[in-house]
Amino acid sequence: MAALHTLGVAEGVALVRQGEVSPVAIAEACLKRIEALEPALQAWVTLDHEGALAAAKRCEQQIQAGENPGLLAGVPVGLKDIFYTAGLLTTAGSKVYADFVPDYDATSVTRLRENGAAIIGKAVTTEFATSDPSPSRNPWNAAHTPGGSSSGSAVAVASRMVPAALGSQTGGSTLRPAAYNGIVGLKPTYGRISRYGVIPVSWCLDHVGILVRSVEDAATVLQAIAGSDPHDPGSLSEPVGAYVTAVQQAATPPRIGVLHGYFTDHADAETRQHTEAAAQKLARAGAAVQDLALPPSFGTVLAAQRIIMKVEMAAFHAHMFMTRRDEYRPKIRESIESGLVIPGVEYLRAQRLRRLFQDEVSQMFQEVDVLLTPATPAPAPRDLTTTGDASFQAPWTYAGVPAIALPSGLSGAGMPMGIQLIAPHAQEDRLLRAARWCEVALDVSLAPPV
Amino acid sequence: MAALHTLGVAEGVALVRQGEVSPVAIAEACLKRIEALEPALQAWVTLDHEGALAAAKRCEQQIQAGENPGLLAGVPVGLKDIFYTAGLLTTAGSKVYADFVPDYDATSVTRLRENGAAIIGKAVTTEFATSDPSPSRNPWNAAHTPGGSSSGSAVAVASRMVPAALGSQTGGSTLRPAAYNGIVGLKPTYGRISRYGVIPVSWCLDHVGILVRSVEDAATVLQAIAGSDPHDPGSLSEPVGAYVTAVQQAATPPRIGVLHGYFTDHADAETRQHTEAAAQKLARAGAAVQDLALPPSFGTVLAAQRIIMKVEMAAFHAHMFMTRRDEYRPKIRESIESGLVIPGVEYLRAQRLRRLFQDEVSQMFQEVDVLLTPATPAPAPRDLTTTGDASFQAPWTYAGVPAIALPSGLSGAGMPMGIQLIAPHAQEDRLLRAARWCEVALDVSLAPPV
Repeated sequence: MAALHTLGVAEGVALVRQGEVSPVAIAEACLKRIEALEPALQAWVTLDHEGALAAAKRCEQQIQAGENPGLLAGVPVGLKDIFYTAGLLTTAGSKVYADFVPDYDATSVTRLRENGAAIIGKAVTTEFATSDPSPSRNPWNAAHTPGGSSSGSAVAVASRMVPAALGSQTGGSTLRPAAYNGIVGLKPTYGRISRYGVIPVSWCLDHVGILVRSVEDAATVLQAIAGSDPHDPGSLSEPVGAYVTAVQQAATPPRIGVLHGYFTDHADAETRQHTEAAAQKLARAGAAVQDLALPPSFGTVLAAQRIIMKVEMAAFHAHMFMTRRDEYRPKIRESIESGLVIPGVEYLRAQRLRRLFQDEVSQMFQEVDVLLTPATPAPAPRDLTTTGDASFQAPWTYAGVPAIALPSGLSGAGMPMGIQLIAPHAQEDRLLRAARWCEVALDVSLAPPV
Repeated sequence: MAALHTLGVAEGVALVRQGEVSPVAIAEACLKRIEALEPALQAWVTLDHEGALAAAKRCEQQIQAGENPGLLAGVPVGLKDIFYTAGLLTTAGSKVYADFVPDYDATSVTRLRENGAAIIGKAVTTEFATSDPSPSRNPWNAAHTPGGSSSGSAVAVASRMVPAALGSQTGGSTLRPAAYNGIVGLKPTYGRISRYGVIPVSWCLDHVGILVRSVEDAATVLQAIAGSDPHDPGSLSEPVGAYVTAVQQAATPPRIGVLHGYFTDHADAETRQHTEAAAQKLARAGAAVQDLALPPSFGTVLAAQRIIMKVEMAAFHAHMFMTRRDEYRPKIRESIESGLVIPGVEYLRAQRLRRLFQDEVSQMFQEVDVLLTPATPAPAPRDLTTTGDASFQAPWTYAGVPAIALPSGLSGAGMPMGIQLIAPHAQEDRLLRAARWCEVALDVSLAPPV
């Protein structure tokens, strides 16, 4: 058997359910792995040894008593430090929230616990999930950014500290760090996972994201936490699908539309060639691959996404910012300051363009099942003053459609490369089925040298 | 029998259905009345003699053939000149739309036609349904404003040119002109009547309004045109009630909460005394009348309503305004200019305050069926440079709850006075039942000296 800290979600749950591995032993192995790597990687803000072991113990007792331990029986999970956790520090990576201890759990955290997950602790986030770099280090090469804003969550999963972590995505904050660290990142449809109890960046754009190491693991975590929530006004009413079944049945090769224009023009040469090679490999394996052009409204998408984000961010922070401006780091400060003066008419125009883009995106799937782009314009930059480039994710976050990043190889410099797949609104089952097929066809497995 | 042009909606429909009056004769009588009074009152932009007579003729044929002529069989109806009418000029009272002829009907217009109404023509509106005075004259006294923005609709109904007209309300544009002209004005719940095909002021605040001369007539027109519409994103999903039945069954005296604070402080002495006397009269007739205080968030309501209105108005006009600024009149120009620079964070704060106020308004109905205020702070001002004061309506438009204005007497100067009743979200049946009871108890019937 593999070392316990390297077990994936589905793998670990199966072994735990069969009584072959103790969930307590898995939690202990993960905590030990964290202890060993944390000084170099800085993925965590707060660890909850006691809580994690107690949850694992409870799971063990349920198994012994013949009870159902839940979809995530004993799975150690990390939470980006913007998820409310009752009694556990929740800092949002900020000085303003440095001492904040919520008295309730975010809905997604409640659902993780109800499904038997062992919450290991709170992972590093950039300040308020925006773009000032965090202290986390990329396990592939510490001179390269791990990405952001879900930096700690991605680093922890890539370095085998935990099999799964929750992050969030307002622009590209789940899929980008996933790609930079060589793991799988899933952002479901807007509203599919409740944001209640998650410190917001921008309520019209925020999504809870899932960081794991396989498509099946992404489906398993999604299955456990997806669903509507009266406490989240953006909650999706469409029923939750059978995601785990969707990936287990994966068989038919998908019809894939490879996006050109912006995504070809803005990728570096290595990424362009790599993506083309990946698409060819998928075609050879049987996928129907065709090139697709972008819709007319694409040109306004990135500017409009930033306008909505900045205005809503400024609205959330306005009051705190008035009195504690000096405690904010430079990039978020600049975003809030610019958000405070953006006219309402620009905000409304950006919202109208969003509905237009959503209509046009839905038209793109007439002949294909999923869209494909490089996950990022280039591998993680060798630059610790940036969290990288979110421009390949932001359009799909703005549209609210589900997207997933999969590792697809290594760059010449030895950094992970990835592809991104996108599906229509509320069709996570289609996305996950296609992603699982691609994962098998690409046959890439990455583990960082730590 | 009364002169045909003075027949109300329900009255006319009953006579037409019984074959006692020809709908063609009613339409002709109304057109003749318009011809006589229009030079003095200026209620109309465009008349559609042919269309109206053709609709009346069709209705007559249906009756003769034993077919169902619809809820509004042969009722002549005026439309504020912001409702799209296929093939008929729709100017919005503006130079910018001076030559605009839509190629489809607004949904509400379609529903009027389907129910047998005879569309007489397009009634004068202030420019783009805002606050620059229109040429319409108050039939009670031409030196007093008829109110706005649905000025032509109110004047036409008050002066017995038509028994019913559609208007709109973003602040107080239906109930205020109704009160100033001594008629009934109904603004149902936000989204109850489709706004598709109605030139917008502010899509989060715009309501279609109904101007008539009795509560039963308001219920009858509402019954005909209410209902959800996929073309209106703000459309209400709650099912349409049995409004006509509600007013016909009116029997139990309502529990009425009379609002004080702002509504007492801002009414003139005559209006204050008049409203108190009206409340006492209702109490003597058996209503349970109590005083009610306003919720804490009331203090921000008027400012927040104006912010939403100005920003959304500016967003709609931004492009036209850039090139045709000089064709706008001074008050709307100033509103658009200020709307263009209001920050998005202020707009979002106004939207958040709206949800808070909506919650607080819903709490106000724990012990009462309806709320009561004076319809306006004072009777129609003797001032043609203003359309009057919308502040007593704007809070309920902002909250989106249904409200109705009823005539309750005449001022010392001989101008109409009115009361306003307000009900909870989606409870138009409750509002109309209470309003019908009050109408009987007040026993006031007003007709202007024209």
